[in-house]
Amino acid sequence: MAKELKDLTSREEDYSKWYNDLVVKAGLAENSAVRGCMVIKPYGYAIWEKMHDALDKMFKDTGHVNAYFPLFIPKSFFSKEAHHVEGFAKECAVVTHYRLKNDPEGKGVIVDPDARLEEELIVRPTSETIIWNTYKNWIQSYRDLPILCNQWANVVRWEMRTRLFLRTAEFLWQEGHTAHATKEEAVEEARKMIGVYRDFAEQWLALPVIVGHKSDSERFAGADDTLTIEALMQDGKALQSGTSHFLGQNFAKAFDVQFTNKEGQLDYVWATSWGVSTRLMGALIMAHSDNNGLVLPPKLAPIQVVMVPIYKGEEELRSIVAVMEGIAAELKAKGISVKIDDRDNVRSGFKFAEYELKGVPVRLAIGPRDLAGGTVELARRDTLTKESVPAEGIADRIENLLEDIQRNIYDKALKFRDSMITRVDTYDEFKRVLEEKGGFILAHWDGTPQTEELIKNETKATIRCIPVDAPAEEGTCIVSGKPSHRRVLFAKSY
Amino acid sequence: MAKELKDLTSREEDYSKWYNDLVVKAGLAENSAVRGCMVIKPYGYAIWEKMHDALDKMFKDTGHVNAYFPLFIPKSFFSKEAHHVEGFAKECAVVTHYRLKNDPEGKGVIVDPDARLEEELIVRPTSETIIWNTYKNWIQSYRDLPILCNQWANVVRWEMRTRLFLRTAEFLWQEGHTAHATKEEAVEEARKMIGVYRDFAEQWLALPVIVGHKSDSERFAGADDTLTIEALMQDGKALQSGTSHFLGQNFAKAFDVQFTNKEGQLDYVWATSWGVSTRLMGALIMAHSDNNGLVLPPKLAPIQVVMVPIYKGEEELRSIVAVMEGIAAELKAKGISVKIDDRDNVRSGFKFAEYELKGVPVRLAIGPRDLAGGTVELARRDTLTKESVPAEGIADRIENLLEDIQRNIYDKALKFRDSMITRVDTYDEFKRVLEEKGGFILAHWDGTPQTEELIKNETKATIRCIPVDAPAEEGTCIVSGKPSHRRVLFAKSY
Ligand SMILES: [Zn+2]
Ligand SMILES: [Zn+2]
Repeated sequence: MAKELKDLTSREEDYSKWYNDLVVKAGLAENSAVRGCMVIKPYGYAIWEKMHDALDKMFKDTGHVNAYFPLFIPKSFFSKEAHHVEGFAKECAVVTHYRLKNDPEGKGVIVDPDARLEEELIVRPTSETIIWNTYKNWIQSYRDLPILCNQWANVVRWEMRTRLFLRTAEFLWQEGHTAHATKEEAVEEARKMIGVYRDFAEQWLALPVIVGHKSDSERFAGADDTLTIEALMQDGKALQSGTSHFLGQNFAKAFDVQFTNKEGQLDYVWATSWGVSTRLMGALIMAHSDNNGLVLPPKLAPIQVVMVPIYKGEEELRSIVAVMEGIAAELKAKGISVKIDDRDNVRSGFKFAEYELKGVPVRLAIGPRDLAGGTVELARRDTLTKESVPAEGIADRIENLLEDIQRNIYDKALKFRDSMITRVDTYDEFKRVLEEKGGFILAHWDGTPQTEELIKNETKATIRCIPVDAPAEEGTCIVSGKPSHRRVLFAKSY
Repeated sequence: MAKELKDLTSREEDYSKWYNDLVVKAGLAENSAVRGCMVIKPYGYAIWEKMHDALDKMFKDTGHVNAYFPLFIPKSFFSKEAHHVEGFAKECAVVTHYRLKNDPEGKGVIVDPDARLEEELIVRPTSETIIWNTYKNWIQSYRDLPILCNQWANVVRWEMRTRLFLRTAEFLWQEGHTAHATKEEAVEEARKMIGVYRDFAEQWLALPVIVGHKSDSERFAGADDTLTIEALMQDGKALQSGTSHFLGQNFAKAFDVQFTNKEGQLDYVWATSWGVSTRLMGALIMAHSDNNGLVLPPKLAPIQVVMVPIYKGEEELRSIVAVMEGIAAELKAKGISVKIDDRDNVRSGFKFAEYELKGVPVRLAIGPRDLAGGTVELARRDTLTKESVPAEGIADRIENLLEDIQRNIYDKALKFRDSMITRVDTYDEFKRVLEEKGGFILAHWDGTPQTEELIKNETKATIRCIPVDAPAEEGTCIVSGKPSHRRVLFAKSY
């Protein structure tokens, strides 16, 4: 661990290496023996569990239920929805055989060539096809609608360049798949769920996001409209953090899912899908952390308060730990998670550094002088400040402090993000801002995929979204000079 | 639904069809378009979520943490542990390619022949190999031990004959994988976790189980000892419901995982693994249900209390629902889940049958005469009895009733199970009991795999376990006549 602490690269030195170092050294995740697949380590998984629990409650509070659909999708399903097959990435894991056998030459196991599948199976990259093939049997009448299902699952996309949490071959996510009797209801569902994601990002990850529509080129294959939440990382690059798709009747038509409406007529079912993934872990880490390590919003921190005794000798330790256990009991009664670290084989300075690396929001230290004076040393991770405070009333103080920290982390991220939104009116200015400052750029665009692609090719910036709250504003496209009616949001992105 | 209710096969007519009908008609699960893979429907998944939450808490209360390891395992890993490769079933899904492409002939997508993996990947049938390959990097010293990780995941075993929940190609499970500095500690961990499973089966599933060791032939490939919990279904067949393995140093040796012990010497790490799966759903359904449908223990029921208004006209409905909402609020305050079914398009008799099918433990009906007399009609699913009781104090009464029902379901299953354990002393008697009565048979066995196999081939009965609490008892093997020192438990099984 001492070694691990020393080796944390600074953000300024190499942002990308800083991120990777942090993920590994804080014990969040690591690469596995399988190219592009990560191991999510216990500390990282504990954060993901908190995200899971909070999101799952938000889904249930909005009337959704969970279900589970197969990992495998018959290859032919991918050919059924035209846009889906054209537009969707085809980097998928393909299962062709169903048996191993002992190598006749005695070298372990080989794939049994006789056990070839008649039709190849694809490890789900997303589940619209298999789910709509299933919904076909669940839906006859408007009385069977809406269906509001969510699934927590692993999915696989064979990415060539992978980065822990941000882009991995296998990742964990949830995918909501809903079916509705009317277009209006489906559009409203897609809108509602991007709102759930925005609330989750802001209230739990302490991460401000911009909600908007994707452009035609950036839209999910098979969707009529894709809503997104876009967050800004500390290096000025955007990170798409969640999407919600209005799928129209595309999948219903592809899988022939019709229902009898209230008027007794047959119609195709309207659909949405929406998802967030372990990518949110990457957003969380990159948005708030610093050169000392992780900075975790208290609401997602596996350990919210760590206590470190400063002592000489067994007796002093016992007295200090007794006080700590009293405080810990009070904190636990408030639902606050606490750890007392009384390890005797590492110095307290080492412990301090370790919990800074791990992003524990509040650290409490008690030494002999505190014991005598009825004080404790209280340190907060977000500001790296500490103060001596009375031990009396400490549990209430910490409860409030955790709320302060949650708010402060959000405010800091919001201030940074807002400082990194630049309005530009010429392409030269666009390129200069992108080069010198980065961040989000609000600019006029003529709405054509040609201009969008030209900008992407020349600058690597893409349209992150057309913000839902973008005010109508007449202007001219920075590239073509053609008329535009609102600004759209550009950025380089992960 | 009317149709569904009518079509439920009776247990006596065809037990196997009764089970399958029940799973499908109660909305628990169904077969998917992918052979052997099931869709777990919302009502079934809601039960699994309750199992998940209860087990997860038990794991955490015993010091375990969750993590996540890759879905894919390099083929070569299967050759590393000799017993594992020899003994483990090789029916696995094999990934050979990583890309699809558009069919040049325009017929959808095909597998890109240029995208062949250098080494095939196996979809995990269980994760010992990939996890021990990972643990190698986590363990240097005794201070890194124990590692007490659990994983909630999907796994795939290419079963030829599948049955919903009981045996499916893909299933959901948890797999604990622990690493220890000493043999004693690992043995104790394996023992502790089978105890957790026993407690969970008894307290949550209301399912009595027999804990014991597997015979050498039935042991998990790669384990030195396998502990199991064995439950009895209503048709007299056993169902293995959970296993906990002491793995010795087998995987540590296969993946070269050594550590420096307290004495400063290098040693191989000791291991356990343990798991339960969605198979428990099958056990739950088969153990308690009847010809009217599911019987769910209240602790696992997604809806614990359903209320059905019996009314004529809008006004009566409103008055009754108002009373029900008052009761519902009281119940919810006690943490009891409630549904008020005020649908006006189905008769109440239909609703009664539907909730019986779905196994809702308590049904409360209120009609105009109840309204006038201050009573409610209270029906319990386990006994199919009903009574008129005062509305006054109904929430407390229901709270107690749910506990009664949980206990009664367990007691009934225990009584049945105990009535189905037969001690036999001759092979003729063994065959006769197996044929005429079924259930568990306690008999002397000479301890050889030859005798075990002979019995299996001749009768289809296997040794379910050598019960941990089997008293020492001198006897002679029912087949060979050789000396035996304790009885072992035989049965036909799922
Ligand atoms: Zn205009
Ligand atoms: Zn003896």
